[in-house]
Formats: sequence, C-alpha cells, structure tokens
Amino acid sequence: MPRYKLLIEYDGRGLAGWQRQADLPSVQQFLEEAIARYCGEPVTVQGAGRTDAGVHALGQIVHVDLPSRRETYSVCQGINFHLATQQISVLQVTEADDDFHARFSAVGRKYLYRIINRRSPLALDQGRAWHVIDPLNVEAMQEAAAVLRGHHDFSSFRDSQCQAKSAEKTLERLDITRHGEEIRIITEARSFLHHQVRIMAGSLKLVGSGKWGAADLQGVLEARDRRASGPTAPPDGLYLTEVVY
Amino acid sequence: MPRYKLLIEYDGRGLAGWQRQADLPSVQQFLEEAIARYCGEPVTVQGAGRTDAGVHALGQIVHVDLPSRRETYSVCQGINFHLATQQISVLQVTEADDDFHARFSAVGRKYLYRIINRRSPLALDQGRAWHVIDPLNVEAMQEAAAVLRGHHDFSSFRDSQCQAKSAEKTLERLDITRHGEEIRIITEARSFLHHQVRIMAGSLKLVGSGKWGAADLQGVLEARDRRASGPTAPPDGLYLTEVVY
Repeated sequence: MPRYKLLIEYDGRGLAGWQRQADLPSVQQFLEEAIARYCGEPVTVQGAGRTDAGVHALGQIVHVDLPSRRETYSVCQGINFHLATQQISVLQVTEADDDFHARFSAVGRKYLYRIINRRSPLALDQGRAWHVIDPLNVEAMQEAAAVLRGHHDFSSFRDSQCQAKSAEKTLERLDITRHGEEIRIITEARSFLHHQVRIMAGSLKLVGSGKWGAADLQGVLEARDRRASGPTAPPDGLYLTEVVY
Repeated sequence: MPRYKLLIEYDGRGLAGWQRQADLPSVQQFLEEAIARYCGEPVTVQGAGRTDAGVHALGQIVHVDLPSRRETYSVCQGINFHLATQQISVLQVTEADDDFHARFSAVGRKYLYRIINRRSPLALDQGRAWHVIDPLNVEAMQEAAAVLRGHHDFSSFRDSQCQAKSAEKTLERLDITRHGEEIRIITEARSFLHHQVRIMAGSLKLVGSGKWGAADLQGVLEARDRRASGPTAPPDGLYLTEVVY
C-alpha cells in the first residue's frame, strides 16, 4: 500500500490533543475519519508529535497508507474536503518510502512557546498564548536558558506520566526573544520528554519574574526531580512548528 | 463628569461589529454593559472606528464619561473584570479632556488587512484572515497600489450604504508586503469611506491574480462608480490597528 506523508496545521483549542481518545475529539480521530471518507476504507495515521490537549501545530507530520496510489494533489484536496472541522488543515502531501515513519524517522522537532506579557486579558490571543501578568525580564531568561541547552538528564523537566526510558536529551536550541508584549521561546531537539517544553517554559517564567536566577535553574536541572522545577505552562502557548527528517 | 480614553482590542468573530444593534451582540453593547456594572450607572461609549461585523481591532479607541473620578488603573481592571466576553479587552485607560472625542478628534486611522495565500484551508487563521487560493503577485499589487495613494475621489471604493457627504479622501499610506504565505496590506488615512479598505483589498486581489493591471485600477478609480471596482473583501482579514490624535 502506498505511503503518504502529510504536513498538517491545527488549532488545538477544544481538542483532546493529537492522540485518539475514547470519548473526546482528537486530531487523530478527525484525520482518520476524513481519510476514511476520502479513500473508502478505515485507516490509521501516525503522527510525529503527540501534542497534548490544547496544543497547536503549524507543522505536524503524519503518515498514512492508502489502499491505492493517488495523485498527492488529490489526496491533499480530498482530505481537506472531508475534514469535518475547520480547525485542522492538510498543507502538503508527498509520497513516502515504505520504511518512512512519521514518528520514528524524525530526527528533530521544533516548538514555539508564546507568552503574552501584559496586564490586560487576551482577546485575539485567547487560547493561543500564555497570558503572564508579572513583567518578565527577557535578558534574565536568555541567560538562564544557557543552563538547559545541550545534553542533560532532564528528569526535573518531565511529567510524572512520562514513559520514556531515559530522561537524557540533547537540547539543540533554546532561544528567547521579545517582540513588543510577546515573548517567544523557540526550542529544538531530536525528541522531548512528556511536557518538557511546557515545564521549561514554566521554569523560565519564574526566572523572568525574578523568583529564580540562572543558578537556581542549574540546581533544578541537577536535582533530577520533577518537584524541583516550575509549574507546567498551559498548553495554549505551545505550537509544534516543524519536524525534521 | 470625568472623561476617559480607552485603548481596546477585540476579536470580531461572532460580533455584529462595533455599533450597538437591536438584536445582535456588538462591541459597544458589551463594553457599555461592562462599564455600567463597574460604575453603577448606564453609560454611552463613543468609538473612533465603527468596525463592521467580523472585523477585529488591535487598537480601537473609545471614550466614556464616568460619574466620578477614578484611578485609570482601577478603570481598566474594573471594566475587564466585568466584560462578559473574553473577546474584548481594555489595554489602557487614560484621562481625557472634556472636549476629547474618540471619533471626531481622530486625525488618522490605520488598518491592516491580512490575506493568507495558499491552497489549503485555514486552521489557525480561520476567521482572522482572507483565504485566497489563486497565487497572488505581490509586486504587481505593490505597483498598482501607487494608483490609490494620495488625494482622490474614492467613489468607486465606497459601499452603496456609505453616508459620507464627500468621497474625497487622502490615502497617506498603502503598503503591501509578503511574509511567507501571508500578504499584509497596511493603510492609513485621516478617515475612510464605508468598506473602503475592504473594497481596496478586493480590487488589489484582482491585480494580484492577474485579472487587472495598474492601468485597470486607474480606470476603476476614475470611474467613480462602485460597480467598477472589485468585490468587497471579507471582514475576516481586517484589523483596526491604531487611531491617531
């Protein structure tokens, strides 16, 4: 059966996340249902990143096997036509080798975490960014980010539900920039632990608000204990932006 | 009664626009109700730009008279607390002179019109940009925009419902830029005719898709007839970004 690689975008609000759930709407469910309607047979899709409830994607990658070979153009249009929700869109479809696997072939994932740092509530960015009222010092956050870059045991930055065998990861990138009232955390690694980006964002926020310094973050990393790190930042601000193969 | 000037942001989706309507939810209604709950008396607010249904604002300006003098900080927090919807937010409150009028004192309005130019449907920008499938030539749009800049009779670019006495306006700015798949039209004038920005956007889209050239747009302008210009672009892409005093 020919394999196809799909680039997809979604607004995570109101969805239970990537993975199919028994009773809650998920990206996987909507996508599988749309593809089944398009090709006439039930299908299973595999996603590169299992994003949590409320997390968005600008560049999620998915693979699916179709019962017969079709034009990639038709696959893209056909699935979009059948998507029952407007909050998921297929941006691009390409043919993939039989041994391509959206999740296991990936060698890098990039995420963006958006913070809107102001007193007033969010109107246009409601559900699409983390609203932080305390004024954040971006320079302090940038300085502390250096602590996390590189190869470390990230046990302090993994959810207690995380099933990864090892907590050792290499953070290739962790950049923080300010654009007016918006602060963007951009990070990249081969893979991340469960909630890692959101726990890093929650911890960096404590640095930005002056509660912690870079040395505190160093202590958190060395503690290798989830209880040492900051709160898990809300899913609203998180975007899977790119998967690298 | 002390007068206050409010800077507000809103997501226009699902709202009937700025102006209060008998049966439909409007920005003015939500704001007046929130301020009444805050100060304990009914109030009337005046807005600088009477945005249409579905149009957004990043920098709408409003004035309101309150029954007693209060800290601007408290006014901002209090109104936001009472706003029944999360799609409107007061960003800033300042005291204003008695003769300040949000609409009549304004000497400039700036708008942004967002087009997402791609084949796939919009997920994250649903209702927040105009989805245009035809590939648009931004250079051709930029060249044609020069036709509209400056002082002209914009009769071809006003809605038939427009109540302005004169159709003569001075377009101070009309810039078009591309950022990946997004095209931004940024325009500024002392004031605009009803639907002017959206009719300009709809006409520039015809230029971008190759149906018109700059000379055609010149002909449309000279026709001084709404039937000569392009379709009114949808409200989704329009943002009132700033009011100048």
